[in-house]
Amino acid sequence: MHILFIGDIVGKPGREAIKRFLKPLQEKHQIDVTIANGENAAAGKGLTKEIADELYANGIEFLTMGNHVWDQRDIMNFIDRESRLIRPANYPVGAPGQGHGFIRTKGKKIGVLNLSGRVFLPSLDDPFSGAIRWINQIKQETSIIIVDFHAEATSEKVAMGWFLDGKVSAVIGTHTHIQTADARLLDQGTAYITDVGMTGPRDSVLGVKKEIIINRFLTQLPAKFELANGPIQLNAVVLDIDEETGKARRIEAIQVTGEK
Amino acid sequence: MHILFIGDIVGKPGREAIKRFLKPLQEKHQIDVTIANGENAAAGKGLTKEIADELYANGIEFLTMGNHVWDQRDIMNFIDRESRLIRPANYPVGAPGQGHGFIRTKGKKIGVLNLSGRVFLPSLDDPFSGAIRWINQIKQETSIIIVDFHAEATSEKVAMGWFLDGKVSAVIGTHTHIQTADARLLDQGTAYITDVGMTGPRDSVLGVKKEIIINRFLTQLPAKFELANGPIQLNAVVLDIDEETGKARRIEAIQVTGEK
Amino acid sequence: MHILFIGDIVGKPGREAIKRFLKPLQEKHQIDVTIANGENAAAGKGLTKEIADELYANGIEFLTMGNHVWDQRDIMNFIDRESRLIRPANYPVGAPGQGHGFIRTKGKKIGVLNLSGRVFLPSLDDPFSGAIRWINQIKQETSIIIVDFHAEATSEKVAMGWFLDGKVSAVIGTHTHIQTADARLLDQGTAYITDVGMTGPRDSVLGVKKEIIINRFLTQLPAKFELANGPIQLNAVVLDIDEETGKARRIEAIQVTGEK
Amino acid sequence: MHILFIGDIVGKPGREAIKRFLKPLQEKHQIDVTIANGENAAAGKGLTKEIADELYANGIEFLTMGNHVWDQRDIMNFIDRESRLIRPANYPVGAPGQGHGFIRTKGKKIGVLNLSGRVFLPSLDDPFSGAIRWINQIKQETSIIIVDFHAEATSEKVAMGWFLDGKVSAVIGTHTHIQTADARLLDQGTAYITDVGMTGPRDSVLGVKKEIIINRFLTQLPAKFELANGPIQLNAVVLDIDEETGKARRIEAIQVTGEK
Ligand SMILES: [Fe+2]
Ligand SMILES: [Fe+2]
Ligand SMILES: [Fe+2]
Ligand SMILES: [Fe+2]
Ligand SMILES: [Fe+2]
Ligand SMILES: [Fe+2]
Ligand SMILES: [Fe+2]
Ligand SMILES: [Fe+2]
Repeated sequence: MHILFIGDIVGKPGREAIKRFLKPLQEKHQIDVTIANGENAAAGKGLTKEIADELYANGIEFLTMGNHVWDQRDIMNFIDRESRLIRPANYPVGAPGQGHGFIRTKGKKIGVLNLSGRVFLPSLDDPFSGAIRWINQIKQETSIIIVDFHAEATSEKVAMGWFLDGKVSAVIGTHTHIQTADARLLDQGTAYITDVGMTGPRDSVLGVKKEIIINRFLTQLPAKFELANGPIQLNAVVLDIDEETGKARRIEAIQVTGEK
Repeated sequence: MHILFIGDIVGKPGREAIKRFLKPLQEKHQIDVTIANGENAAAGKGLTKEIADELYANGIEFLTMGNHVWDQRDIMNFIDRESRLIRPANYPVGAPGQGHGFIRTKGKKIGVLNLSGRVFLPSLDDPFSGAIRWINQIKQETSIIIVDFHAEATSEKVAMGWFLDGKVSAVIGTHTHIQTADARLLDQGTAYITDVGMTGPRDSVLGVKKEIIINRFLTQLPAKFELANGPIQLNAVVLDIDEETGKARRIEAIQVTGEK
Repeated sequence: MHILFIGDIVGKPGREAIKRFLKPLQEKHQIDVTIANGENAAAGKGLTKEIADELYANGIEFLTMGNHVWDQRDIMNFIDRESRLIRPANYPVGAPGQGHGFIRTKGKKIGVLNLSGRVFLPSLDDPFSGAIRWINQIKQETSIIIVDFHAEATSEKVAMGWFLDGKVSAVIGTHTHIQTADARLLDQGTAYITDVGMTGPRDSVLGVKKEIIINRFLTQLPAKFELANGPIQLNAVVLDIDEETGKARRIEAIQVTGEK
Repeated sequence: MHILFIGDIVGKPGREAIKRFLKPLQEKHQIDVTIANGENAAAGKGLTKEIADELYANGIEFLTMGNHVWDQRDIMNFIDRESRLIRPANYPVGAPGQGHGFIRTKGKKIGVLNLSGRVFLPSLDDPFSGAIRWINQIKQETSIIIVDFHAEATSEKVAMGWFLDGKVSAVIGTHTHIQTADARLLDQGTAYITDVGMTGPRDSVLGVKKEIIINRFLTQLPAKFELANGPIQLNAVVLDIDEETGKARRIEAIQVTGEK
């Protein structure tokens, strides 16, 4: 089974990249299921119902989130009713939405688990011990399990990869918006990448106009963020998963770039 | 001119990787000058005179450092006398050692500047405004300038790349120990990569035995670090710099792996 | 000379406390000059021209700020023209506003210096080495110098107190909104308190409705801040300064509470 | 019932303060039970069996800890066997030691709960939701419950006070080493103070020689900590608790200082 996992979609330029690059990618890699991190899809911050629907309409079947999950108030209106959208599972019990979900396609079921790191990020519940609990629940329904670990520190992400090696099909890092060059199969058959990267404006600082961020570092003054113009990119990984065992056969990092 | 910049060398396995992989790499890429980040060369923490000398003897001509610079007390004994070694320039005025230095080779002079980020790292002086000051000094002597920006947050690193685009030959990120997949020439001719990666034990968490770090995340108890065994890797970038203009012609990310 | 320094004024309840409690305090302690931290005076976040003018009209002669200085955009419209208002001096060179200023009263001149800590706070310039530079400037005009050190960590605040002991009349900590019980004269004649406290709603979490903050800790969800109702308090210190030497003779912590 | 709660005992000067000041204090305030935070009792970092025994021998009946709990390896040898010593309860399940314990005296039982904050501190389990669980367990045995909340940020500490108001006898903050001036009874009968302060060398930065810490801020270089000499202090609160209801009748902050 071929799964495409797309890195953080940033605003309109990111959605434009989905419209432009996704279909050909799906065909080229004979993709069965497409998952994307959508935490920045609404103008760089959070997600609205309208934008989620646009992404579903354009070929994404399932969305994961991260620290920006609550940035748009609209999320509260639909996250509890939307089965194709999850947020980090290690928010305190009782938080709106779900931390894991399932995609059903071609007679198969794929489990998706979203986790948030805690190093340099808000104080959520332990993603390590939590991972084991949630994976055990998901395992009752399927052996194909994709984990989006939304985290900052490389130490935490790499440790999670090794920790879940052999327990899930893939651990895909998100959040830093820069793709890492370490996509590989770990020893026990789990596909891993520290960060899958970002889908949005290429000549930018994580999606934002570079002048704004440079100025913020120079002046330490607040500034209104504005997304960058110019060329757009789509960052992703293609996973080839053995449907019987849930083990990964292959992981390939993808970068597509083009004029907007 | 071909410059090889090697990512953080971690302990004995990292030095082993230098001994094993450096010479063939230098030949293959016709390297004129080799620079490496040495902040973890002594058992993962800091640098000693003896280990610096070992690295020089094995083909590295210049060492940069980072937040681990003071981890070995021995550094205080030689950093002020050692012209082939720099530490982040944005330590407060009066700190031991130098923040930039020069390599003289084949009638050419290469300036090297070491900077530390401040996001999720100690409170040093501003690396952005400082960069301009130090680059202006270096420019009086040479137009070939390599910057090692030792930083954690991708936003700060990418911003520095764009900020120095056209002002230096290359901005090479270090510190996260994971190579990123974004090596490129920026618009004004500066070579850039968010992180060049790590030289040391491959199946590890940033060099350390994975079981130790996983356990630390699970228990939040302190634990003595121990470097990992098994396969070793060398991470680097090859830079091709125009000696007249100081502009980069090409940047290529390198990963070499082998059994120890 | 008797100087009253008032802790962070929080929103309307804080301004109400000024209206209610300031005059009697000034009379009781025969206050010559009144200074207050105003970083939270506008609805808990920042300061506007209108609110600054209200505070001046109600007996405050000089305002200092902190990390919330830029929260209201209106500040950009008047901070450069307003001589009775300073923001932390260790913002990068070129930031709007001034980091120190002077109060002229009864033939005397009082210098006021505002500094921000860097531990658990944004990456500004070094407040320690900066303090010496700015104090030397101020000393050319007066020996009476009041420092508002707006900082989080007790280690940084206490260290600044000792560092400036004998160099200024008083080091007054602000920012934590909780008055500390360590007001004292240091060895060389500088009056010191780690935090002068908060002026605003008493039964609150730093001014905000307690239910909102408790809920945020429990759910890790964002929440709109709303200031608390109920009893109001004014926190301050009274300083008695020798006008000739600039040394402090006495520091007394003040807490006034009353129904709104 | 009169309970004395003593703030973080720092090294030999802190233990000296216990020897010198505790007995007279216990007599003056007719203390029934004495509790102290011991996380810094061994040379400023952690606790050993020998030092714990010295403190018990000198009149302290129960010790709480904080982020320094694991600083001395010796703690691992006795924390599981020692019923008079607890560490923050919100360490992950399975950590050595206990998070709450009981003191039996004069036919009464006092429950003590130790919690750690998470703001600017390591990523432990949620102290807020955890507090409710552990308090419910303790309540099965006694209605007299003392909470040591070891935390940095005033917002987290004040929020915890209000959150536990009416559920426990007292919430005593520790960790910042500076006593706050906000000891009070909250609305539902819980005694509260944001920080009880430090027991150790007075003219210091949180116990450490002031020159060392000032120098560290100025140079950003590491430095070996050394405890300060000179006058010593004991910081504490006296609690008067209704033994039937567990409600607090009174809280009084105490500071004793003397030559060593
Ligand atoms: Fe993102
Ligand atoms: Fe994120
Ligand atoms: Fe490193
Ligand atoms: Fe580093
Ligand atoms: Fe404030
Ligand atoms: Fe503040
Ligand atoms: Fe402590
Ligand atoms: Fe502590």
